[in-house]
Amino acid sequence: MSQQVLVLPGDGIGPEITAEAVKVLEACRDQLGLDITLDEGLVGGAGYDAHGEPLPAQTLDKARAADAILLGAVGGPQWDKLPDLSKRPEKGLLGLRSNLKLFGNLRPAMLYPQLASASTLKPEVVSGLDIMIVRELTGGIYFGQPRGIRTLENGEREGFNTYVYTESEIRRIAKVAFEMARKRDKRVCSVDKANVLEVTILWREIMEEVAKDYPDVELTHMYVDNAAMQLVRAPKQFDVMVTGNMFGDILSDAAAMLTGSIGMLPSASLDEQGKGMYEPCHGSAPDIAGLGMANPLATILSAAMMLRYSLDQGDTAKRIEQAVSEVLDEGLRTADIMSEGMTKVSTSQMGDAVVQAL
Amino acid sequence: MSQQVLVLPGDGIGPEITAEAVKVLEACRDQLGLDITLDEGLVGGAGYDAHGEPLPAQTLDKARAADAILLGAVGGPQWDKLPDLSKRPEKGLLGLRSNLKLFGNLRPAMLYPQLASASTLKPEVVSGLDIMIVRELTGGIYFGQPRGIRTLENGEREGFNTYVYTESEIRRIAKVAFEMARKRDKRVCSVDKANVLEVTILWREIMEEVAKDYPDVELTHMYVDNAAMQLVRAPKQFDVMVTGNMFGDILSDAAAMLTGSIGMLPSASLDEQGKGMYEPCHGSAPDIAGLGMANPLATILSAAMMLRYSLDQGDTAKRIEQAVSEVLDEGLRTADIMSEGMTKVSTSQMGDAVVQAL
Ligand SMILES: CC(C)[C@H](C(=O)O)[C@@H](O)C(=O)O
Ligand SMILES: CC(C)[C@H](C(=O)O)[C@@H](O)C(=O)O
Repeated sequence: MSQQVLVLPGDGIGPEITAEAVKVLEACRDQLGLDITLDEGLVGGAGYDAHGEPLPAQTLDKARAADAILLGAVGGPQWDKLPDLSKRPEKGLLGLRSNLKLFGNLRPAMLYPQLASASTLKPEVVSGLDIMIVRELTGGIYFGQPRGIRTLENGEREGFNTYVYTESEIRRIAKVAFEMARKRDKRVCSVDKANVLEVTILWREIMEEVAKDYPDVELTHMYVDNAAMQLVRAPKQFDVMVTGNMFGDILSDAAAMLTGSIGMLPSASLDEQGKGMYEPCHGSAPDIAGLGMANPLATILSAAMMLRYSLDQGDTAKRIEQAVSEVLDEGLRTADIMSEGMTKVSTSQMGDAVVQAL
Repeated sequence: MSQQVLVLPGDGIGPEITAEAVKVLEACRDQLGLDITLDEGLVGGAGYDAHGEPLPAQTLDKARAADAILLGAVGGPQWDKLPDLSKRPEKGLLGLRSNLKLFGNLRPAMLYPQLASASTLKPEVVSGLDIMIVRELTGGIYFGQPRGIRTLENGEREGFNTYVYTESEIRRIAKVAFEMARKRDKRVCSVDKANVLEVTILWREIMEEVAKDYPDVELTHMYVDNAAMQLVRAPKQFDVMVTGNMFGDILSDAAAMLTGSIGMLPSASLDEQGKGMYEPCHGSAPDIAGLGMANPLATILSAAMMLRYSLDQGDTAKRIEQAVSEVLDEGLRTADIMSEGMTKVSTSQMGDAVVQAL
């Protein structure tokens, strides 16, 4: 039976970049015999504009039914002023993550040799960089209760959120990190703030506990402030980094930017059965939306990740990744990764080139 | 009347580096007529070892009585396993901050031209870098209640902390940032996660409100994940960055590391009257403690900051800063900033050289 893929273009450059990934998936279907069926849905600002909800019920239903989801990006200035936080585009994304229980977020930060010069860091500091950040995605302060803004007795307002993790939430993300490390350099660095925050004292304790089941994997701990420093100072020291939702949000973006080409980086968000949502690491870039300038490669590589992790099509995934590498070798570049002597191409030209190279 | 300075060496390299700053302050007293009296106290692991408390009562009394405080650093592996978080060295530091109401943390990240090559970033990305991070230091998730680890009905444990800010806490740190910007490039970038966290929605709102009193200063907002990226991508875009305690901890360390010479960076923590505690941005570096290798310049520059902000001795502060610049010009370097062709010196040789250059 054909595997069902739901495509959620979202906002900003989302529709442009997912269109290119769809091109590539269709080429795999038509030319390589990949047996998938593609459907589309609205999410984020697009969902709000059409149905008054960033995560319309029909989208959630489709997402539940699908075998895997490919997402563009959500958000834009036109929705930033919505007084009701629950209507903002980001809530569509957060709603998908939590409703589908996509707790395991994989964010690779790797440097493409062809794009080494795009990094703001010195070549010797980043060449060969290959970090896998494992971020917990359905817990922590993003979802903790109670939360809100209340008025105190003295009349002034107070904003509050709750940073919370249970043992089992920590245990299952720990396992994802250790399993991942086994397939890589067998080192996990767990990032916390255990010198200040109780929730991360528990985090550290459970990491130690799970580590006992993985004697072949080395576990170290690092405070989040130090981790942010070490990413700048000597990023190649890391193999797998595991951390909570908020710290992971910050550190994975910093790590991605070390490569200088965040337009190249895919991500996966997985549930306990390996079903997942795949999306580029970058955002919806409303400033360049509709201009045909966006780099579709992170989304195309997200589609490849989807084939590998959720659809068990590792060979086709590899072909897509090789095709991407080839177009880079040919010197094709979208504006974000353009450099002297290369050939500047548009979003759709880049997608076409990948299809060509397949 | 003589101004009272309390020196708190703390742990690790703390005693070595504060000793050099004391040398410099004594030279200013003996040779330049600076009218100060120096006293010492125990804090952190040193306080715990001597009195069973990371912030002994006598230290807090002395700190309250002093006009300004110069701190080395706290923490070390021998206290990391203390089961009672309230006894850990870090609680000494946090206790000083909160008891003395030192809510305004100033963390400059600037590149010394003499040390430009120490940065892991390309010279064009960081040359001339000069960011002032204003971090709220006595609120947010560091101090929020409730907090702890509890056992749920199903028998598993849950760790929790509370991220909380009131309007007045936000307002007073906003003012520090805007006042600071007025003395600089008149730009404030407020960092939050207002697309997810209610507490930072209030943060953003109050920033906007305070901005009305500073029409000459430009206010922008940035999400914390993007801020972490932008610090790596194009750090020179920032003038003053203002943020809460936790985000400030992470971003200020990342920003400091951009310079490649965190051993050079001082910091100030001020109360509403301008009384303050001054300390280097770096930590207690237990691995090199006692080896005479540590760089004392961040602590010496913290002493200069102390003279400027709390003791109204701007001229003497400037002389110290010039002396530091001179020893760098002479090519003297501690191990952390050593590069080819320079002269490697020990902690105390560096202190002596600064005294010499005064
Ligand atoms: C859009 C936003 C809610 C989201 C997050 O903070 O998780 C994004 O920054 C990400 O990292 O996927
Ligand atoms: C030692 C620790 C509690 C402290 C903090 O997190 O505030 C330190 O990292 C700092 O930034 O001064």
